[in-house]
Amino acid sequence: MNREELLTKYKDPIKVLDYGHVILVDVMGDDFAIEDAARISYQRGTRKTSDTRGLLRYLLRHRHTTPFECCSLKVGVKLPIFVERQWARHRTAKWNELSGRYSELPEEVYLPDRDQVCFQDKKNKQGRAEAFNEADADRCRMEMREETKGAFALYRSFIAQGMAKETARIHLPFGTYTEKIWTQDLHNLLHFSKLRLDAHAQYEIRVYAEAIASILKAWVPLTWEAFEDFQLYAHTFSRQEMISLRSALQDIVGSAGKATVCARFNTEGLSAREIDAFFEALGLAEDP
Amino acid sequence: MNREELLTKYKDPIKVLDYGHVILVDVMGDDFAIEDAARISYQRGTRKTSDTRGLLRYLLRHRHTTPFECCSLKVGVKLPIFVERQWARHRTAKWNELSGRYSELPEEVYLPDRDQVCFQDKKNKQGRAEAFNEADADRCRMEMREETKGAFALYRSFIAQGMAKETARIHLPFGTYTEKIWTQDLHNLLHFSKLRLDAHAQYEIRVYAEAIASILKAWVPLTWEAFEDFQLYAHTFSRQEMISLRSALQDIVGSAGKATVCARFNTEGLSAREIDAFFEALGLAEDP
Amino acid sequence: MNREELLTKYKDPIKVLDYGHVILVDVMGDDFAIEDAARISYQRGTRKTSDTRGLLRYLLRHRHTTPFECCSLKVGVKLPIFVERQWARHRTAKWNELSGRYSELPEEVYLPDRDQVCFQDKKNKQGRAEAFNEADADRCRMEMREETKGAFALYRSFIAQGMAKETARIHLPFGTYTEKIWTQDLHNLLHFSKLRLDAHAQYEIRVYAEAIASILKAWVPLTWEAFEDFQLYAHTFSRQEMISLRSALQDIVGSAGKATVCARFNTEGLSAREIDAFFEALGLAEDP
Amino acid sequence: MNREELLTKYKDPIKVLDYGHVILVDVMGDDFAIEDAARISYQRGTRKTSDTRGLLRYLLRHRHTTPFECCSLKVGVKLPIFVERQWARHRTAKWNELSGRYSELPEEVYLPDRDQVCFQDKKNKQGRAEAFNEADADRCRMEMREETKGAFALYRSFIAQGMAKETARIHLPFGTYTEKIWTQDLHNLLHFSKLRLDAHAQYEIRVYAEAIASILKAWVPLTWEAFEDFQLYAHTFSRQEMISLRSALQDIVGSAGKATVCARFNTEGLSAREIDAFFEALGLAEDP
Repeated sequence: MNREELLTKYKDPIKVLDYGHVILVDVMGDDFAIEDAARISYQRGTRKTSDTRGLLRYLLRHRHTTPFECCSLKVGVKLPIFVERQWARHRTAKWNELSGRYSELPEEVYLPDRDQVCFQDKKNKQGRAEAFNEADADRCRMEMREETKGAFALYRSFIAQGMAKETARIHLPFGTYTEKIWTQDLHNLLHFSKLRLDAHAQYEIRVYAEAIASILKAWVPLTWEAFEDFQLYAHTFSRQEMISLRSALQDIVGSAGKATVCARFNTEGLSAREIDAFFEALGLAEDP
Repeated sequence: MNREELLTKYKDPIKVLDYGHVILVDVMGDDFAIEDAARISYQRGTRKTSDTRGLLRYLLRHRHTTPFECCSLKVGVKLPIFVERQWARHRTAKWNELSGRYSELPEEVYLPDRDQVCFQDKKNKQGRAEAFNEADADRCRMEMREETKGAFALYRSFIAQGMAKETARIHLPFGTYTEKIWTQDLHNLLHFSKLRLDAHAQYEIRVYAEAIASILKAWVPLTWEAFEDFQLYAHTFSRQEMISLRSALQDIVGSAGKATVCARFNTEGLSAREIDAFFEALGLAEDP
Repeated sequence: MNREELLTKYKDPIKVLDYGHVILVDVMGDDFAIEDAARISYQRGTRKTSDTRGLLRYLLRHRHTTPFECCSLKVGVKLPIFVERQWARHRTAKWNELSGRYSELPEEVYLPDRDQVCFQDKKNKQGRAEAFNEADADRCRMEMREETKGAFALYRSFIAQGMAKETARIHLPFGTYTEKIWTQDLHNLLHFSKLRLDAHAQYEIRVYAEAIASILKAWVPLTWEAFEDFQLYAHTFSRQEMISLRSALQDIVGSAGKATVCARFNTEGLSAREIDAFFEALGLAEDP
Repeated sequence: MNREELLTKYKDPIKVLDYGHVILVDVMGDDFAIEDAARISYQRGTRKTSDTRGLLRYLLRHRHTTPFECCSLKVGVKLPIFVERQWARHRTAKWNELSGRYSELPEEVYLPDRDQVCFQDKKNKQGRAEAFNEADADRCRMEMREETKGAFALYRSFIAQGMAKETARIHLPFGTYTEKIWTQDLHNLLHFSKLRLDAHAQYEIRVYAEAIASILKAWVPLTWEAFEDFQLYAHTFSRQEMISLRSALQDIVGSAGKATVCARFNTEGLSAREIDAFFEALGLAEDP
């Protein structure tokens, strides 16, 4: 999908949470621009015939990440301030945000849906577990709403008395919405996606990451597919785990024979090179 | 002052605002380390006899900023969240911050002093003007305190009901204190100081910038002096302003004579090179 | 000029030096995109009626640089390796470069034009002074050419013997051309321009900076004009210089009267706000 | 090992290649400083009793990389320019390098050892294969040496004629040594180590990475151990590989029984949590 088609497809904001959204503003580059950037490095050393998909997969598999930096996405985002605080940790991005020193903030405060009022997870110290029962959830939501309504009433009273906006806002809630224009290169967008699509990311940022992922998928489908295969759904085993895995397989090979064991691996979807690398990693490479 | 002396001098936190502080944790490098970094570039091309102060002043005057990047400061900072949000725009720093997803937040909320409850500045849209009268200020402060007390009471009630901490905090106020460990190189510390010591910076971040400036002054006194002279208290005239200034001086020279005009300039504190550059910039250079 | 017009206008490479070029590949954003990014911050606090040019000038005058980061330029550059080494110091850019480990390097080596074979500047330790006489310049150029021809002959002989490309290139000259695709945001492009258009920048990088400046001028004309006025041709006076300047003017005012002195300043091209700020900086502000 | 002990241990340069070295200049922080930075985030949410080693391993296993950014290493490095060009791609570092515009460059040019004059690898397009025979290697080395001697003789002749140093150097070889002072934070040092210790990195940068790794191992031993276990010697399987691996194990479980299969895995060196995660990743988790 080229730039114009993409901008047309996403001309309407993607709604997120109760007042939030992600709006596509602009993009630079696409899957083929990444290939162009990579080819400048390998030019006379690579066959021109290898296809774009294969090259992009090769790049991501081997973590040659610089060519992905030559593409950029610009979005407008409206989001609760506590979500923005997590987002702002992605320091390689460029952004401008609404300033509460200049502008009076409208009364738009995030209120979790009923099924998002949950118990603290006991095991995952930063996570949430099962939802409250409906009655309790609704009571809590009403209390939250009352609390934030009161905070905004006081804010408006301060503004009406002529208080400086930068001071009048001090008691406003973390859940107040803000807006920003956010520009990020594709390499760092993938890193953002990996961290914020993760099950351990807070629900309220995950839904924004999903909105952005839907744009990425349409914009750079080959990159996204490679990202899912080699990063998002990939799994890293530690040195000790690899030793254990290889020795267990060696052991099984000892009793069942290497051919029998290898035959159990369905290698559909792997290229010939990938199969070689896979069996070598498992200690099942063919004898030379 | 070497590292040990500095760590001793600043072994106690510098108090800032009502609950905040800046604690010196560590430094790397000093004025002489900057000279060493600069000398690697110019080594065989510069006289070894030029002194450290002269070299540092030369570097800052000509914006050769990379040698200042080889020094680093690490501080612990406790600060209101709305201040942290301004601070986080300095994206070249490295930091870790207390997470409200993991930890229950203590009831520590910034309340402005009486003389900091001010009217909105009409001219400077992001600033504050004169203070409220005492009675109004105190009434507003009491209302703020009541509001934030209520918010924390509800927070604790949510926690007591077992609500996930990441959700229970949504209605807490921007003025709630957080903590972080923040590491920044000296070049970017000077940039931070330039922006956050400025009269237009919000009072509540300016007082932190002042605390950090006091450490910098003790740690790298020669750098700080040069920074004050060539950046903090320097003034930049635009192309048009320079044209206007030069033509006005030319005009005055026309009636009074160049010697008379030049004699009016007190050049104390400027090196011979700086005097030449100064008169040249003003269009008053000696005729060749 | 919008993106399509710009890409059409610069569809041919801009030739630089003997074998080099700058090719426009893509841009994201323009003058209006910067305004959009800035408006998100000031939205409800600024009059919508202020014009784009005025806003961009305000932003650059007050060093509000983040909105300029939301625009990006991507160029293909072919350049001598010693120029690339200076260019690579701009660490905020993203780029991919031809790799001499993968590809055999073509015999393209920079040879200075006759008028660029110059004497060492005695005062500016990193610069060049007047040109050699023609005969000497040509003799030196011939010796250089012979030297680099010999180096490439040996390189090809090594390659022919099957030597690894990464080793065979070790004795090749700094002047050998390389290629890269380079992406940079507009804020950092202005910083690059400021440093590399400077008279002290080496001639061979300055000509590339000029090629890029010509694209910037066509792409973001309002930004470029403001950049010239407030950065490129602006002048910064140190604290001591400002004290000296103000006291000299005060002195002249003492004998000639403030009105007479002020009248000598031609303030054409300055807005009312700028005139106020100018006279205030000079210590000539009107008495309240 | 604390800072003083480390500076004493590495007070002499580590020799690298023929004229190169790595000199330890300074460090900031250590394993315990990383723990301190991490604790600020998790403070009231984590048991204080978990030990430093366990925490650092947890952080690296889960890619919580920010606490590692609070430590910095500063080294002096003398290295061939073609190695510096690879090194300079690590853009998050801060450095100053000798300038050939200011200083006359000494005749120090890298000459590969006999066993490093190798054939081009046919499969790995950027690598080297087996060494030339001794006679061929020595002949090539002599030719290289003659070539670079001639280049330096011409350089000195240009300098003697008064040519600007920035021009006289254009034909000097890539293998000429340069020097820099280089500062990098620990997170990015681990990334540098991962890339430059890799078997695919060019030999001449790998030996520098090994020198730096030896310092890291002494400076932050717990971090280095965790880095080796979870990054350097870890292995990442793609989505397809994980599907294949899990289905093969499932298959084997089908014939041999889960208990038998699981018993083949030697889980020595894995914590209880790691064993759970390992079996879960393999699809061998205990039935609930």
